[in-house]
Amino acid sequence: MTSFDETRYFSPLAPGASALPPKVSLVGAGPGDPDLLTVKALRLLQQAQLVVYDKLVSREVLALVPAQADRIYVGKQSGLHTLRQEEIIALLVRLARSGRSVVRLKGGDPYVFGRGGEEAQALAAAGIAFEVVPGITSAQGMAAATGIPLTHRDHATQVTLVTGHLRDEAGERGLELDWSCLARPHQTLVVYMGVATLPHVCAQLERHGLAADTPAAVVENATLPTQRTVTGTLRTLPTLARAHAIRAPALIVIGGVVALHAELAAQMLR
Amino acid sequence: MTSFDETRYFSPLAPGASALPPKVSLVGAGPGDPDLLTVKALRLLQQAQLVVYDKLVSREVLALVPAQADRIYVGKQSGLHTLRQEEIIALLVRLARSGRSVVRLKGGDPYVFGRGGEEAQALAAAGIAFEVVPGITSAQGMAAATGIPLTHRDHATQVTLVTGHLRDEAGERGLELDWSCLARPHQTLVVYMGVATLPHVCAQLERHGLAADTPAAVVENATLPTQRTVTGTLRTLPTLARAHAIRAPALIVIGGVVALHAELAAQMLR
Repeated sequence: MTSFDETRYFSPLAPGASALPPKVSLVGAGPGDPDLLTVKALRLLQQAQLVVYDKLVSREVLALVPAQADRIYVGKQSGLHTLRQEEIIALLVRLARSGRSVVRLKGGDPYVFGRGGEEAQALAAAGIAFEVVPGITSAQGMAAATGIPLTHRDHATQVTLVTGHLRDEAGERGLELDWSCLARPHQTLVVYMGVATLPHVCAQLERHGLAADTPAAVVENATLPTQRTVTGTLRTLPTLARAHAIRAPALIVIGGVVALHAELAAQMLR
Repeated sequence: MTSFDETRYFSPLAPGASALPPKVSLVGAGPGDPDLLTVKALRLLQQAQLVVYDKLVSREVLALVPAQADRIYVGKQSGLHTLRQEEIIALLVRLARSGRSVVRLKGGDPYVFGRGGEEAQALAAAGIAFEVVPGITSAQGMAAATGIPLTHRDHATQVTLVTGHLRDEAGERGLELDWSCLARPHQTLVVYMGVATLPHVCAQLERHGLAADTPAAVVENATLPTQRTVTGTLRTLPTLARAHAIRAPALIVIGGVVALHAELAAQMLR
């Protein structure tokens, strides 16, 4: 299923336009707050003629694209994929080959759970020049906006980012993570796209030895005005998240740094 | 040892100025390229009156601070600490209490190995309002600028960031990391500030079971015009890094994603 009018984008270009070298910019849209875009990302968006974007790109960021620019939505919605990943890649290649400069806009950072690596590979294989503009990834936006540092000498000497999203798009495979290593103390674990699997994640970590009273939080809509933070422990978080009706997009954070949230948030400007 | 003229900054303010509520902005300066600052960070720098900055802040970023603003350097140099961390924290508190708005500028992201958590705690304890502006952390800047994605479905389902810097500032303790977990395959491991300990890191990972032919790279001055990338394997990287005289600041990246570097870099715009 495609959600866009194919002929509109592949109609013949004006003479000369097709002589432009094709170029794709894989741009990180950051966590949502447009103030957290990079300077380069903002410039590319403001100059964009054609933007191919995902569901996780916030409305506020998308509003920076000029009104006359073309937008193609290729995001996913509740199990129904507007375009499959291979179709997105094929689309990017065709658009670039038609001589258009394409801004491929992805939530967060293209190279952190953004499938930017796969898109970059496909572009490289097709001989299309590209650039990658990093974005503040959700974990960073969440940390700054909630007062939960990702590292701290007293609490976490490393930070690990994983995805709670099932690899198989059809959902046939379970969530296979290296639980025994994720269950180690003295680290911060951030689970992207983990709301649906929160009870499973917490149960597995406890089963693999992480203390039940390890501080844990779930943060909905991090950096946006609608941000909500629910804190608890590995044991209590699933129940608390359900009680507060936490919904995607949300991040799970587990580790001693979560205990800093209350004292830091008390003095934070918003 | 202090490197600044204390009296200059604590001289009495003009009447009324001290009535301003003190505020500290902990701002991530990103990996070096000023184009990778966030929009918010750029605005705060351009409006800054007083900037307290670290060694890892690039000259290009610092150049965005107005000429008439005061700058205090609190960075470290080759084992000689200009100011100790506790002194930096005490300085921030005193500056804020004197009624000045302070931009505390840190390389990368304040909450990723930036000791921003400790500074935020101290500010909160002192009752000083603060905000944290995230920055592109070095690993992200490196990934985008080299063509080494941090995650990739075929190579890495998680990314782990650690620091190769010794915890004890006097260097008395060895580098204590959770080697058996860091040595697992199917992840990307990024070691910050790891040049000095590169041979130790590679040896420990191999000893704990990571394959000797695991792709590995070291990237010096990521995102800056002077960026250099050396790729090899867990076994060969220490020798290669020495042969190329790689110096700090540099990042070590270990994992299957490093193998994508050549094919991606070939089509990347710089």
